[in-house]
Amino acid sequence: MKKIQIYDTTLRDGTQSEDISLNNEDKIKIALKLDELGVDFIEGGWPGSNPVDRAFFSEIQNYHLNNARIAAFGSTHHPNFLPENDPNLRCLLDSGAPVCTIFGKSWDIHATEALRVPEERNLEIIHDSVAYLRSQGAAVFFDAEHFFDGYKANAEYALTALGKAFEGGAEVLVLCDTNGGTLPSEVTSIIGSVRASLPDANIGIHTHNDCEMAVANAIAAVQAGAMHVQGTMNGVGERCGNANLCSIIPVLELKCGGAYTTIPRERLPLITGTSAYVADVANLQPFSRQPFVGRSAFAHKGGIHASAVNRLAMLYEHIDPKEVGNRQRVLLTELAGRANIVNMARRFGFHLDKDEPVVKGLLNELKTRSSMGYDYAAAEASVELLLLKKLARRGVREFFHLVQFRVLELKDAHGGEPISEASVKVQVEGITEHTAATGRGPVNALDNALRKALIGFYPRLNEMRLLDFKVRVMTATNPDGGGTASVVRVLIESGDHNSRWVTVGVSYNIIEASWQALVDSITYKLYKDEYEKRKKDEE
Amino acid sequence: MKKIQIYDTTLRDGTQSEDISLNNEDKIKIALKLDELGVDFIEGGWPGSNPVDRAFFSEIQNYHLNNARIAAFGSTHHPNFLPENDPNLRCLLDSGAPVCTIFGKSWDIHATEALRVPEERNLEIIHDSVAYLRSQGAAVFFDAEHFFDGYKANAEYALTALGKAFEGGAEVLVLCDTNGGTLPSEVTSIIGSVRASLPDANIGIHTHNDCEMAVANAIAAVQAGAMHVQGTMNGVGERCGNANLCSIIPVLELKCGGAYTTIPRERLPLITGTSAYVADVANLQPFSRQPFVGRSAFAHKGGIHASAVNRLAMLYEHIDPKEVGNRQRVLLTELAGRANIVNMARRFGFHLDKDEPVVKGLLNELKTRSSMGYDYAAAEASVELLLLKKLARRGVREFFHLVQFRVLELKDAHGGEPISEASVKVQVEGITEHTAATGRGPVNALDNALRKALIGFYPRLNEMRLLDFKVRVMTATNPDGGGTASVVRVLIESGDHNSRWVTVGVSYNIIEASWQALVDSITYKLYKDEYEKRKKDEE
Repeated sequence: MKKIQIYDTTLRDGTQSEDISLNNEDKIKIALKLDELGVDFIEGGWPGSNPVDRAFFSEIQNYHLNNARIAAFGSTHHPNFLPENDPNLRCLLDSGAPVCTIFGKSWDIHATEALRVPEERNLEIIHDSVAYLRSQGAAVFFDAEHFFDGYKANAEYALTALGKAFEGGAEVLVLCDTNGGTLPSEVTSIIGSVRASLPDANIGIHTHNDCEMAVANAIAAVQAGAMHVQGTMNGVGERCGNANLCSIIPVLELKCGGAYTTIPRERLPLITGTSAYVADVANLQPFSRQPFVGRSAFAHKGGIHASAVNRLAMLYEHIDPKEVGNRQRVLLTELAGRANIVNMARRFGFHLDKDEPVVKGLLNELKTRSSMGYDYAAAEASVELLLLKKLARRGVREFFHLVQFRVLELKDAHGGEPISEASVKVQVEGITEHTAATGRGPVNALDNALRKALIGFYPRLNEMRLLDFKVRVMTATNPDGGGTASVVRVLIESGDHNSRWVTVGVSYNIIEASWQALVDSITYKLYKDEYEKRKKDEE
Repeated sequence: MKKIQIYDTTLRDGTQSEDISLNNEDKIKIALKLDELGVDFIEGGWPGSNPVDRAFFSEIQNYHLNNARIAAFGSTHHPNFLPENDPNLRCLLDSGAPVCTIFGKSWDIHATEALRVPEERNLEIIHDSVAYLRSQGAAVFFDAEHFFDGYKANAEYALTALGKAFEGGAEVLVLCDTNGGTLPSEVTSIIGSVRASLPDANIGIHTHNDCEMAVANAIAAVQAGAMHVQGTMNGVGERCGNANLCSIIPVLELKCGGAYTTIPRERLPLITGTSAYVADVANLQPFSRQPFVGRSAFAHKGGIHASAVNRLAMLYEHIDPKEVGNRQRVLLTELAGRANIVNMARRFGFHLDKDEPVVKGLLNELKTRSSMGYDYAAAEASVELLLLKKLARRGVREFFHLVQFRVLELKDAHGGEPISEASVKVQVEGITEHTAATGRGPVNALDNALRKALIGFYPRLNEMRLLDFKVRVMTATNPDGGGTASVVRVLIESGDHNSRWVTVGVSYNIIEASWQALVDSITYKLYKDEYEKRKKDEE
């Protein structure tokens, strides 16, 4: 098994994503998580470019990393300075990072048009920058910017530039497809030429996804002999993003016949969680269809597939989802739904047959409501409540009854945020409770008032927390009301000490949609506790 | 130039996406748009599986398509029927589609485990199904399900199954990577064997994205001799999706040295619009990093990149975005921002120098507000307003002044949607207007009341429509308020007869965030009209 170095640049090239902006605390959190996953190198930023990046390098030294070595990124020295006087190289050395990765020009036109120096001078700059950093004790990786485009334009110059970095003492020559325009067949053949020209050099690969080829190009490079792969978590990065390590790592580990090893194999199941964690810290919407780690990656909808995976998962799954820490999901559809509902009822102690009318009835109701925008694939707790309501004769009850709620928003000329106040009147077992609360926004006020009204009856609601709140506007335009009358879907994730659940509400009115999801969430908590207690009593 | 057939299956395999559900009207709309783009085949559905799909085939016959031929999808005949009595093959013929695409088993274990027939019987079924459809006058494409996995398990059986379809008269043998687990290097070598075994057959390719290789595999197949590519718009489809035609078409057209032709070349710039249209009809969030067609695909953020693309775009762009109907965007950052602001001011007739303090001041303000969650890259109209406010001495004014607004939501025990009522008190040039309106939800009520208050002063607000309303919850949890107190960003797109603009609001209170975006939107309209009128008067 050949060891392939995994070099993560989420914190540097990844932050070039249009929608990412990380502060120092975010960067530290992500670095620690990447170390836990077991990557070999974490590129922390460009210390020469801004103070946030410099702060990262000093703070990360307070942590003990188990696997990863920190790399600092920068450019070759400025044409007007000697290497030893170059402020950028100085920042790299001052960062304290054991690895310095510097990029240089290997495309002739970039030397003359972007760097604006003669071609020969660029070669000198590459050699001298690498050699100087080496002489100061750093390990040096050389990122040959635009290498593939440069090779296609002027192969001799591109190879000479690489050779200069090699002579200077670069430990890895990283071939960059900076503009993302290269195809795997080209990667294979160009790396062949590089290896012929520099047989003793270690080759790395850094690709971008502009042709939707970043992962394929990285794999092709490894198959052609590269021993070092650069990429980012979830493929974030400038324009179309960088090569996605969440795909590259599983492909090298699981899909290449055991030829390669990357992170410690027992940590591979951490990758789904790491992907989600990074998306969360970076405040990015997870991409549900993302290979290996996405929520839909092993979700089966087609009737044939869904019934076949129930029998033999390998028929429609290329790997066991558990190997990457993900799970199989068989979605509620006419064909797959009945068995799911039977399973769901069983969790609550109801033994149904899949041909019982209640099963068919629930499926029909789910279908109708799905077409209204309820997302039951996401909100399983709301599905369970619908089922429980249908089975009411066997023991579910209404925990509270709404008499009235009122939400008021008031903003005046003094500016600032409006005041949000909600009043709620509910009945519990014939007793009326009427109370009010303020909040940070209308939904928060309503949530506060409802809990306040119920807490005297159900003190265990104190254990429950709202963990996540998602809003999606479902239709862009509405024929009779204009844009602002679109239908809104609210998903609320709640949790207590031992579980988490998601509920859904849909309405053109965001307050109503939130109310539906809030009511489901509280009802679910109360029913769940009651059921668990009953089960315990029976034992 | 070799012609590569483009076979779109958005309407069939694409709808296996977890988050897609299309009605018949949606399907017709998408089919007409695909025809306009110039694909060769549109797979409309599986007429044997459900009535929505049958309705599509009958309705699409009312339309004249310029390029595309319609294909109907189904399986080989049921083992218990003769082909001529098989209801599924009957549905295919009855659909009236000129092309029938049937899938059959080429992986031995699928014959015995999923189809549950002896291996020999499966071969007969393939041959007889194809031959029968041919005898009835249909063109037949054979989808060899799980071909690559089948080939790896039992190459002889997989090739024999293909051979049976060829003998039966299939026009194209489509090799399917159904589980998405195959790598490009395997595609290349396996297609080599297929071509050696069946040198006269036309080879097609159908790939899935489970290893993030769907596009790379399709391209590898074409390079190995395939003449027909199946995929979907935006790569939608079950699990991780199908091969993305929005990438495959540009790669074949622009990145393969002119070796291939797909859609009529002059229509290639339609692909960005087609991608957006399909996402919109299917109610999917567009993926901003999507290659070629995504909003970020040619967006430059890095200071170095942004200043270099201003000089010579090819330095950091692998193609001209206009070739695919997309555009370059240089994002507002410290380095790139000044020139952008100068350009923006010029559009409104202000001639600034990029070193003026107002430019620096605005950039600082944008930075601060961006860190609060304002998305100025999306909401250019809000940026323009900030700029105009800074330049107030040169002629911008406040069109109205808020004294107070109040929004009330009331829901009672009778259920149904709450009542939404808003009152607004504003001053315009010293005159106070106090009015109220109801609406479909709180934001709609507030919008209605504000317009009602202003319309007497500014009748041209009648021309303005709210076109889109987007909500994003920015932080999953809030330390002092729980999930429902998260920060909310609202983007509102508005338009009139000659333009469209986007404004933004941010607050933990969705009403306040919507108010900010509404006020910006109305102010922008009023200022724009006044400016245009002034310019006209000056001429």
